[in-house]
Amino acid sequence: MNDFDRPQPVDAAVIPRFVGPATFMRLPLRSSPIGLDVALTGVPFDGGTTNRPGARQGPREVRNQSTLIRRTHHATGISPYDLIAVADIGDAPTNPFSIENSLELIEGFFKGIKAAGAVPLAVGGDHLVTLPILRALAREAPVGLIHFDAHSDTNDSYFGGSRYTHGTPFRRAIEEGLLDPKRVIQIGIRGSSYDANEHQWACDQGVTIRYIEDVMAKGLDAIMDEAIAVAGAGRVYLSFDIDAIDPSMAPGTGTPEIGGLTTREAQLMLRRLQGLDIIGADVVEIAPSYDPSGMTALVGATLMFEILCLIASRHETSAGHGHE
Amino acid sequence: MNDFDRPQPVDAAVIPRFVGPATFMRLPLRSSPIGLDVALTGVPFDGGTTNRPGARQGPREVRNQSTLIRRTHHATGISPYDLIAVADIGDAPTNPFSIENSLELIEGFFKGIKAAGAVPLAVGGDHLVTLPILRALAREAPVGLIHFDAHSDTNDSYFGGSRYTHGTPFRRAIEEGLLDPKRVIQIGIRGSSYDANEHQWACDQGVTIRYIEDVMAKGLDAIMDEAIAVAGAGRVYLSFDIDAIDPSMAPGTGTPEIGGLTTREAQLMLRRLQGLDIIGADVVEIAPSYDPSGMTALVGATLMFEILCLIASRHETSAGHGHE
Amino acid sequence: MNDFDRPQPVDAAVIPRFVGPATFMRLPLRSSPIGLDVALTGVPFDGGTTNRPGARQGPREVRNQSTLIRRTHHATGISPYDLIAVADIGDAPTNPFSIENSLELIEGFFKGIKAAGAVPLAVGGDHLVTLPILRALAREAPVGLIHFDAHSDTNDSYFGGSRYTHGTPFRRAIEEGLLDPKRVIQIGIRGSSYDANEHQWACDQGVTIRYIEDVMAKGLDAIMDEAIAVAGAGRVYLSFDIDAIDPSMAPGTGTPEIGGLTTREAQLMLRRLQGLDIIGADVVEIAPSYDPSGMTALVGATLMFEILCLIASRHETSAGHGHE
Amino acid sequence: MNDFDRPQPVDAAVIPRFVGPATFMRLPLRSSPIGLDVALTGVPFDGGTTNRPGARQGPREVRNQSTLIRRTHHATGISPYDLIAVADIGDAPTNPFSIENSLELIEGFFKGIKAAGAVPLAVGGDHLVTLPILRALAREAPVGLIHFDAHSDTNDSYFGGSRYTHGTPFRRAIEEGLLDPKRVIQIGIRGSSYDANEHQWACDQGVTIRYIEDVMAKGLDAIMDEAIAVAGAGRVYLSFDIDAIDPSMAPGTGTPEIGGLTTREAQLMLRRLQGLDIIGADVVEIAPSYDPSGMTALVGATLMFEILCLIASRHETSAGHGHE
Amino acid sequence: MNDFDRPQPVDAAVIPRFVGPATFMRLPLRSSPIGLDVALTGVPFDGGTTNRPGARQGPREVRNQSTLIRRTHHATGISPYDLIAVADIGDAPTNPFSIENSLELIEGFFKGIKAAGAVPLAVGGDHLVTLPILRALAREAPVGLIHFDAHSDTNDSYFGGSRYTHGTPFRRAIEEGLLDPKRVIQIGIRGSSYDANEHQWACDQGVTIRYIEDVMAKGLDAIMDEAIAVAGAGRVYLSFDIDAIDPSMAPGTGTPEIGGLTTREAQLMLRRLQGLDIIGADVVEIAPSYDPSGMTALVGATLMFEILCLIASRHETSAGHGHE
Amino acid sequence: MNDFDRPQPVDAAVIPRFVGPATFMRLPLRSSPIGLDVALTGVPFDGGTTNRPGARQGPREVRNQSTLIRRTHHATGISPYDLIAVADIGDAPTNPFSIENSLELIEGFFKGIKAAGAVPLAVGGDHLVTLPILRALAREAPVGLIHFDAHSDTNDSYFGGSRYTHGTPFRRAIEEGLLDPKRVIQIGIRGSSYDANEHQWACDQGVTIRYIEDVMAKGLDAIMDEAIAVAGAGRVYLSFDIDAIDPSMAPGTGTPEIGGLTTREAQLMLRRLQGLDIIGADVVEIAPSYDPSGMTALVGATLMFEILCLIASRHETSAGHGHE
Repeated sequence: MNDFDRPQPVDAAVIPRFVGPATFMRLPLRSSPIGLDVALTGVPFDGGTTNRPGARQGPREVRNQSTLIRRTHHATGISPYDLIAVADIGDAPTNPFSIENSLELIEGFFKGIKAAGAVPLAVGGDHLVTLPILRALAREAPVGLIHFDAHSDTNDSYFGGSRYTHGTPFRRAIEEGLLDPKRVIQIGIRGSSYDANEHQWACDQGVTIRYIEDVMAKGLDAIMDEAIAVAGAGRVYLSFDIDAIDPSMAPGTGTPEIGGLTTREAQLMLRRLQGLDIIGADVVEIAPSYDPSGMTALVGATLMFEILCLIASRHETSAGHGHE
Repeated sequence: MNDFDRPQPVDAAVIPRFVGPATFMRLPLRSSPIGLDVALTGVPFDGGTTNRPGARQGPREVRNQSTLIRRTHHATGISPYDLIAVADIGDAPTNPFSIENSLELIEGFFKGIKAAGAVPLAVGGDHLVTLPILRALAREAPVGLIHFDAHSDTNDSYFGGSRYTHGTPFRRAIEEGLLDPKRVIQIGIRGSSYDANEHQWACDQGVTIRYIEDVMAKGLDAIMDEAIAVAGAGRVYLSFDIDAIDPSMAPGTGTPEIGGLTTREAQLMLRRLQGLDIIGADVVEIAPSYDPSGMTALVGATLMFEILCLIASRHETSAGHGHE
Repeated sequence: MNDFDRPQPVDAAVIPRFVGPATFMRLPLRSSPIGLDVALTGVPFDGGTTNRPGARQGPREVRNQSTLIRRTHHATGISPYDLIAVADIGDAPTNPFSIENSLELIEGFFKGIKAAGAVPLAVGGDHLVTLPILRALAREAPVGLIHFDAHSDTNDSYFGGSRYTHGTPFRRAIEEGLLDPKRVIQIGIRGSSYDANEHQWACDQGVTIRYIEDVMAKGLDAIMDEAIAVAGAGRVYLSFDIDAIDPSMAPGTGTPEIGGLTTREAQLMLRRLQGLDIIGADVVEIAPSYDPSGMTALVGATLMFEILCLIASRHETSAGHGHE
Repeated sequence: MNDFDRPQPVDAAVIPRFVGPATFMRLPLRSSPIGLDVALTGVPFDGGTTNRPGARQGPREVRNQSTLIRRTHHATGISPYDLIAVADIGDAPTNPFSIENSLELIEGFFKGIKAAGAVPLAVGGDHLVTLPILRALAREAPVGLIHFDAHSDTNDSYFGGSRYTHGTPFRRAIEEGLLDPKRVIQIGIRGSSYDANEHQWACDQGVTIRYIEDVMAKGLDAIMDEAIAVAGAGRVYLSFDIDAIDPSMAPGTGTPEIGGLTTREAQLMLRRLQGLDIIGADVVEIAPSYDPSGMTALVGATLMFEILCLIASRHETSAGHGHE
Repeated sequence: MNDFDRPQPVDAAVIPRFVGPATFMRLPLRSSPIGLDVALTGVPFDGGTTNRPGARQGPREVRNQSTLIRRTHHATGISPYDLIAVADIGDAPTNPFSIENSLELIEGFFKGIKAAGAVPLAVGGDHLVTLPILRALAREAPVGLIHFDAHSDTNDSYFGGSRYTHGTPFRRAIEEGLLDPKRVIQIGIRGSSYDANEHQWACDQGVTIRYIEDVMAKGLDAIMDEAIAVAGAGRVYLSFDIDAIDPSMAPGTGTPEIGGLTTREAQLMLRRLQGLDIIGADVVEIAPSYDPSGMTALVGATLMFEILCLIASRHETSAGHGHE
Repeated sequence: MNDFDRPQPVDAAVIPRFVGPATFMRLPLRSSPIGLDVALTGVPFDGGTTNRPGARQGPREVRNQSTLIRRTHHATGISPYDLIAVADIGDAPTNPFSIENSLELIEGFFKGIKAAGAVPLAVGGDHLVTLPILRALAREAPVGLIHFDAHSDTNDSYFGGSRYTHGTPFRRAIEEGLLDPKRVIQIGIRGSSYDANEHQWACDQGVTIRYIEDVMAKGLDAIMDEAIAVAGAGRVYLSFDIDAIDPSMAPGTGTPEIGGLTTREAQLMLRRLQGLDIIGADVVEIAPSYDPSGMTALVGATLMFEILCLIASRHETSAGHGHE
């Protein structure tokens, strides 16, 4: 694809941001991932939510708020739409009445993205949606995971045996051989736990858990160096649960835990991941009904742009021209 | 049970309304329905919701808002706690990850209420919860139904075959012989429909549908006379979907439709139902996250009190001493 | 005072409504009532509130919203600032830590208004503030009262003997000989009551209570004809508790009761009171913290304007030139 | 166009309403009006606003809320997408920094719609946008106007001579010969006015003004019979300012006036207009930032659907199969 | 009490968090503190508030939000319900119409807790409630105080002599010999002051004031080392005014001051206090009506859990098994 | 002017903060700047806004929230009203329908302030208002600028050539010779940009841009030392766009960018500027409609007070008596 053909966002200096239906980043809406390097998509499913539902409404509000994002990254100088082909391909099919069916539908949709050669960058939906995405992307060989979250999401089951929930996806993914637990790092974990051994299973598999206290004690750079050391050598998936961010900055989520990352920290941490082989990524658990201001979705949209720039950075040949 | 033993609400002229944990009507919390005439309970399940979830949070917020309700009805003079034994018995068990399991759990819980000889007065949850309640109460013989709602909820299925949803409970209940369709009346129906024949099945079964336009054209009294004529002779269930009320008065619901009943109208209509043999009732579809003011739950709590007074009215021997 | 000297509001067709500090109706702020026909004032006191506080913040938010009100009444054609001298005189002094002291401070302030020959038109504060206003205005002889409210406010005491509360002002005023109970009418009363005899004392004194059901049954005109018959012959005070209005239209209040008057009804009812000898008036119980939209205060400001036009109507010599 | 080719909305019984980017009524987004009978469009411009801005954000939020609308009208039985070709054609171009330029851009866009033979159904934007729409549609001969609003919008100028504002469009349209003032009716007018003669100019031209008091006194049917008598014989434009609706139902607007129409009344009134030759229509002044609940935009979307059904009704050959 | 008898919270992995009436931490509601090690209670009184009221509503909303808290502390590994007996004992009695009476009622209630041998952990109410709690706990000998707040609360009086307000409790407590001023430290003080010498009295008594600037300059650990040095040797009371936290994280409070502590900082600071002899503690000034999101109450509930773990830590014999 | 004559704010320890109409800092409202050292004023204009409007409502809400500010700075000990004469002089005239006219009106108003010998401290309005202020203050010779913002605001034009917008004021000011670009420093810049060279023009002129990443990397003190080195020698203007602050702390603004300054950082940074020759200052882009809590305006009011203390610090002769 030459430069001329790459989808371009509407230019907010020409057409104001409040104009027109909202798509991710004001990019064209495509009916297929074919020809794209990165496919922006939503997964509007929250059937795995244990407490406060609403993440099914995340993709649409992230689309709305993403109209505030412009085309070039101020710190890294990356202009993704100059480097790669990106578009909004609409939402994955889901069934709000069946977890099982939804897992199948989502997996099928992401298999299509993979088959087209595109990297998916998805907006949830609750965190269960990461499981079928991984099934679509990592069946042939386990991948690494860099996972920002307040919660480890490696519980076994809820409510008398439900195994497919937003508190269990990474246990399932490890069990299914989709993730290499020794290449999994979880960052920002915090909040009271169901019992004192809640994280034992994950640790036993070899997962690296870095609590928010670790982030504060070691510093952002050291944690991210560790993340790269743990997960960075090879194909890696990036999953960002919005509740990694402090609820003052991202109140629109189902399971808020105080004492979280600031957006500034999250942005700096993400930027350290340039150059990794990211095969897919998501931003999940944005539940707009708990945040009438829309700011949580703006955080989600901006982090989505940070991740898009990471993916695009692999395509950049010239030295970075940002101010960093 | 003599007067002394009847549970009494906290007196707001002695202990302010903002004091203490919130139970329905500030009544005692009982662990069992045994000994009660009416059991107030919540059914925090919204797994049947097709669009905007959140009705699982209804019972708790209705408890909060019900602290504003006092003990005597201003218009009818009924003081239910002088006449019957009423308490909050907590919530029905539910499983947010399984519609099927939830239907069983809810049915079992309401069978217990029935076995104790109490009339259940429940707060949803989405409208699917009425189905297991009816299964608990009406298996032996079909009952009548007086149903306030914006929607007929007699569709067949959604999303490729899901038959147990908040848009289908009354179709299932008729099919299962729980309701006598000729003794079913639906009041306040409105809003655009999926297709022009959406209500045909219900009409074919003999259900009486009264649209909001009918209510306006005929007047409240005539409609309620009709409701009594259709459904009132015998055991009857009363189901009130909060979206029957206009969204300006009850915005906290998942499927708002403009042009609805006013609360004033709803109150007058309900009061016409004194003396019926109400075997159970519910107020459903209150989703507090869409109404930070709490007013929707206050509407729900007040309608719950109206219904409680209806049920208590069967126990009143002296002539009403209200101002009506 | 000739026309030239009458205070005039800022003209919103010249200076936009969002400009400048907010005073009532964008009128000049005067430090004294001297020379005024009507003194607009606030009484920011909510120490009499039994449940949800916040009416102390009413005057400031009503000032804000009153910047939306223009100078001429669309239906009656009355332009009060052409007929009488009106200004904002700031707020009455109050002491949030002492009910007793506040009653004295408020009474003193309104005595000053009376001494200046001005009619006070006040914004509360909770409904207790009406008592000291009446003490200032009606010590020499009892006056009539036209009272819009969801509650009779004629209870005796709360919480073990507190007699000066927002639920008791009119009992105190009758006991103190400030009101002639036979010339008192209460309109819009509704909501559950503490006991079945809650209104008995008031009725025994001769107070006329018209429930919301009466308003609906008799019609607005008949009720207001009755109000004029009961209270209109002689000096009369007009008190409007914002909770007379339905909470969908006025959610910003401490004791909402569903099923209330619409603003349209209230406006029509008030307009029937032209020509009465109104010696003072208030709009109370606006608690803005429960209504971030500001709409409750806009309702209050508009009703304040309706009342201002009523008072001004006594000064109008030419026939009304409105469209009615 | 045969049935097969008519654009169809996404079916909410198959794909949940929260899925995918939001377009008007979940219809396809077309880049051109060619081939359409009705073009749904937004006009995101609020540069004519005298007080509280934000109507520029109206079209996007109405798109969001319109995902709640289904395909068939419950009362009239009309299914517009079975009868005519309708699609979302995106927004008109506007320039937030130039009223003059925006008037030209909007006019040009609507000329294109007219040239394509489509009837425009637009969402504002503030009420000034109606002027360039009328310039596009009615240059050759003046048309009639049925106008729902709290305000007459026939002032001459603001702030020292600004003549193109949201308070002046209908004066300009009459002056420019776009409207036949004798075929103009304004319904629901209310609220205080800048001066006692504010409506004199309009009346002098022959405009029929029906205040909210008239609507209440005469009844909905009589008013609409009058509207048809005044405006209905010939080409007519329909303009609905959302502030015609009471602010409790539509708080998201810049110039709220209490005491307005209910949505129920508005729906009944609109439905009386079946069969008129509507050449264009708009719903304006929805400013979502004042209504975080989104309910104002839902009102707007529902009224838009009512109007769409009116336009489609001219294409219906069989007798209505609704329940009316 | 053996392990079996200790009250246990409802397990959110078995019964979802949205189920049932809300008590503190989903613990059982007890009618008496007898047999408890720690009594969780509310003090719903805000009669000492100088400006924005509403803290009376704090306990109920903290109960609601505390349903999000699980049983084990993620960083310290403490599971308080394994170590000590804790329950919700309901709210202290208060009288919203009498500061004096409320002080007596609250003192009496906390004397009962002390007499039962339980440590009270209270949720306000405004900060005046700390005074009667100290009167109940510290009459025999003055205690130390670790006090987080934006304000020193050591003013003398307000509004012409009111001495019992939320701006004066610690001056009264020192005057009454309840606190040893040399063992009092205040942390996080900031915001403009009434006059330049506002804190002079406190400093003269020997109180240690650490402004937010001190916290930033010295670091969290140094400040807490100082707190332990000042107050830690002996019986100590812990009082946490939620306005110590930045208003972006805790907007629901009456006297917000920008530039405050983050929740992350507050959590780390509190955790340094393990092992102290805490005789009682409170979290005050949560006024939910200013924060519809509930996040302020979630902050309060989480800090309450941090403090509960501190108190329980004295009972822990084995070395901590947390990840710190 | 001697001490006695200096305007003094209402004392909140005597008259509660919720009493009376709101002016800036509860200072007297003066009709003229004559006799003042500092004139507090509003500039309610948002006609330069490219996306989300509403900053026109900033001055009134900042007045409201400023009633929370007391008279002495807690950290520096400065009591400005003891040192200089300060008052609220109302708002600058503006025309919402004409950018050109507004630029003239605002310039004229600020020329009047300058002619009176007062330093203006203004609240916007959008950032375009800084241009006419600079025209009034700096025509004779270019001044320095210390500029806090998320955006450089040095673009050339929008929407086909509009050169006077809130994205362009500093480019115009440099072009017009009002600012010496070598004495301009911009702090806190961040967020995606329209293109990779967006800041090139400013850099080419000699403007110093310090991104948020620079602030984090270098530290607050180093950045402010640099600011003083760049801009501090001579007359300097101080402009604070509220979007420099993180949107979690200041959501009420039109163009939020995540990852911003905390208020605590901003306060510390501003305090380093004592002793500079500040000829004028502004706090802009507060759009209250996006923040119903009012917290953004409280941030604005507090920063305004910080700046006022800076200006007053030049008048202080005795050594600072604050706790720093």
